[in-house]
Amino acid sequence: MFTIKRINVEAGENTIILNSTDAYEMGLRSMDRVKVSSKKHSITAIVELSDTLLKPKEIGLLHTAFISLKEKEGSSVEVVPAPRPTSIDYIKKKMNNFELTYDEILRIIKDIVNKNLSDIELSAYVSAVYTRGMSIRETKDLTLAMIETGDTIDFDYEKIFDFHSIGGVPGNKVTLLIVPIVAATGLIIPKTSSRAISSPCGTADIFEVLANVSFTAEEIKHLAEKVGGTIAWGGGVNIAPADDIIIRAEYPLAIDPYSQVIASVMAKKKAAGVNRLVLDIPVGPHTKVESIDLAKKYSRDFITIGDELGMRVKCAITYGGQPVGRAVGPALEACEALAALENKKVPNSVLEKSIGLAGMILEMAEVPPGKGREKAKDILCSGKALDKLKEIIDAQGGNPDVSSESVQVGKYSQDVTSDRDGYVDSINNKSIIKVARTAGAPKIKGAGIMIHKKKGMKVDTDEPIYTVYADNKLKLEEAVKIGNRLRPILIEGMLLETIASTDKLIMYD
Amino acid sequence: MFTIKRINVEAGENTIILNSTDAYEMGLRSMDRVKVSSKKHSITAIVELSDTLLKPKEIGLLHTAFISLKEKEGSSVEVVPAPRPTSIDYIKKKMNNFELTYDEILRIIKDIVNKNLSDIELSAYVSAVYTRGMSIRETKDLTLAMIETGDTIDFDYEKIFDFHSIGGVPGNKVTLLIVPIVAATGLIIPKTSSRAISSPCGTADIFEVLANVSFTAEEIKHLAEKVGGTIAWGGGVNIAPADDIIIRAEYPLAIDPYSQVIASVMAKKKAAGVNRLVLDIPVGPHTKVESIDLAKKYSRDFITIGDELGMRVKCAITYGGQPVGRAVGPALEACEALAALENKKVPNSVLEKSIGLAGMILEMAEVPPGKGREKAKDILCSGKALDKLKEIIDAQGGNPDVSSESVQVGKYSQDVTSDRDGYVDSINNKSIIKVARTAGAPKIKGAGIMIHKKKGMKVDTDEPIYTVYADNKLKLEEAVKIGNRLRPILIEGMLLETIASTDKLIMYD
Repeated sequence: MFTIKRINVEAGENTIILNSTDAYEMGLRSMDRVKVSSKKHSITAIVELSDTLLKPKEIGLLHTAFISLKEKEGSSVEVVPAPRPTSIDYIKKKMNNFELTYDEILRIIKDIVNKNLSDIELSAYVSAVYTRGMSIRETKDLTLAMIETGDTIDFDYEKIFDFHSIGGVPGNKVTLLIVPIVAATGLIIPKTSSRAISSPCGTADIFEVLANVSFTAEEIKHLAEKVGGTIAWGGGVNIAPADDIIIRAEYPLAIDPYSQVIASVMAKKKAAGVNRLVLDIPVGPHTKVESIDLAKKYSRDFITIGDELGMRVKCAITYGGQPVGRAVGPALEACEALAALENKKVPNSVLEKSIGLAGMILEMAEVPPGKGREKAKDILCSGKALDKLKEIIDAQGGNPDVSSESVQVGKYSQDVTSDRDGYVDSINNKSIIKVARTAGAPKIKGAGIMIHKKKGMKVDTDEPIYTVYADNKLKLEEAVKIGNRLRPILIEGMLLETIASTDKLIMYD
Repeated sequence: MFTIKRINVEAGENTIILNSTDAYEMGLRSMDRVKVSSKKHSITAIVELSDTLLKPKEIGLLHTAFISLKEKEGSSVEVVPAPRPTSIDYIKKKMNNFELTYDEILRIIKDIVNKNLSDIELSAYVSAVYTRGMSIRETKDLTLAMIETGDTIDFDYEKIFDFHSIGGVPGNKVTLLIVPIVAATGLIIPKTSSRAISSPCGTADIFEVLANVSFTAEEIKHLAEKVGGTIAWGGGVNIAPADDIIIRAEYPLAIDPYSQVIASVMAKKKAAGVNRLVLDIPVGPHTKVESIDLAKKYSRDFITIGDELGMRVKCAITYGGQPVGRAVGPALEACEALAALENKKVPNSVLEKSIGLAGMILEMAEVPPGKGREKAKDILCSGKALDKLKEIIDAQGGNPDVSSESVQVGKYSQDVTSDRDGYVDSINNKSIIKVARTAGAPKIKGAGIMIHKKKGMKVDTDEPIYTVYADNKLKLEEAVKIGNRLRPILIEGMLLETIASTDKLIMYD
């Protein structure tokens, strides 16, 4: 029998630590598996070794394992070697370039969700999917396995609409326009979004300026059925939980395995009860999808997988070469979105992208082909979308009397001006993100950047090209300094000819 | 400034833990890098997050990071985001199936040795080498990088001999014969061996029955130059230290990337000063190399890499289909090896393999081609090899008055008998290993198995087929029970014809 010692360190998986001598006697090595049993419960855990942390016959339980076993420190447990998860054989099968069956994929995803795989094994999985790829059948099965291993929402309505952007472009506040436009026509659109991870703000961060965004699956269903739409944070819901764990392993390697991207998006949407989906695929130098050809391939495969799942899918390949609109940062973006709904003057890219995507959704309902954009524009211009957004804000516990004037942006701001006459040659999304994050976004809601000059526009010497917002002087100075070093907006004075580039939106059905 | 909190958990890499809020404010995610600086020292470390373990502005240093930073708990350090190691880009380059340059490979190996890579990144490296493979040039560069990042031994002699078995076969005690045979002719053979990891005994475990095996690189050089040969444990030496870390990541995935196997062996030998090497490649159903074709490919590539490194290499493809000799377990194997040197009756396979391999080494020195085996046999029969082994035992601090009679084997033993008349059809190496380990090997020196009936031999009902040794009754019973379940030696009574299989040794130069 072993005595439990609690090791107050979080670990993704069920990890336990054994004294090296005990482990040696039991023939156990680092990353072998053991079954740990108390009188009431038992868990399977990954073994780590320590020479110093534990006395012989002590077992160290890291946070996750301690919680799973439900025993007190100092109580006795039995520890016996356990076989490796069979999913490791299937991961190896994929490494060896063989196709996996549904059962094999399900076993892998179950072990991922149940935290039965170590970082080494998890990384081998994402590496294998990245290097070997998956067939359409495997991708569909992966999608089904990710649905199977989490919660699902069943709506009491036949058609549930949604849209999703694959990878982000800074300033992409279009959700705040699309959801109310669609919901205003009587359709149901239970949109869940992520918070910013490495970007200065996700849709959940923006909408949090105006209302609560943390809801359970049940609450999202209730809200969507009541007011037609939600703008909620997806992270509070146990839908396709494998995704977060897989992303954790992809992040350090900076890889986005193609089939995993498709399965993750489709699993989340299908599990959330969606059956009419518009996908926005921004293409540009620093976006997830860097070429039109790849975007087309994604589009075809998303549509195919949608067919398999009984979900109608349309894809829009959109221009991701510079930020959407001019505002970047939670409050600044909330402001720009409200201004658009209030029919104030806003950048064309915000309106075009929102109306285009909303129109595609409407055409998946009753609106005749080719008439969606016009219908979406009408709803926006009529003020019905603004009313609907206020209804959603109210339902999500926010103040419906908000306006683009009343949203509080950063107290401190500083203009950054051009040192020359010329035209904007390019805007580097990554540098824009860096400056906005340095200013404090997304944590500081009022922090961010307002861009005054976009691609192709003429700039005079000393004219402001962007303004940085922050809530304290130090952060403002830091952000301005980083901006001066990175030059996120490049002015080119030597151009013989400039082509004014307007934001493009290519429909792909 | 952050306050140091010591987290007494071992981690392979330099890992630190930050409060999630602090990390969020700094834009840091799990597995990002930070530079942690005190007044005197600074380290680069991998970030992990915790919500509960740390207060804001506390930094948790796990064991390795704590030791590296050389600061006290409670003292203040500065923490700033640091860039990712560039080696991650090179790992990704290999994932994308591009060839790596020497500098890129060196960067990866340096980061592995300096513990700058997380398990996820390390796993991506071994997965990439496994799935994508490496060219001969890359394999040579990997070998050089592994040498470069550890200690090396420079001998004061021109020719340094050695041999190595690629993957093990149970009962492979041939090192205890080969080293003294070779050293008795005046050649220098500084053999380092591993301890058992998953097998019941490595050469270091066997020789530890007779002498000390833990020596530094300097001591190994001194011993080898004094008595001609050593039989030392390789794990006490900082030679090609990347190998152990890489093996740690390969183990859970049960992969042995081809190029990595070659580079690891060649780096260890080259760094140890060896320039005349014989490689033993056992081939059999449960060995590392399962087919003759693969063994031939290994042979060719080992020889090519040897040429590049200025090392003469010969390879022997040997029979690995059943244990070598009859004894399996540290003391039992020491006994069988001593008996062979004492010219007592021992299984032919022990003599044939030892004399064959030793002969190949002798032919790399002055012995004419085709005469090595004979010369090795002469030295063995003359008693010169026994004298030399005793010299080595003496030099390594053991008792030179040892004999095959005086070695203590397990106090408790039990015969396992056949339940039928017949012939031995097969011996399962894995099951033999399992029984010997259950009996207590390699930890318990006297534990193990003595096999009485080998492949093709006739067995009568109730005749003993093997004997289990242990140092207590419980372990003995357990091992016998497992043996009865696994049936490591399969008796087949229905054979119409049997072919007495003798152990084969195929030379490959």
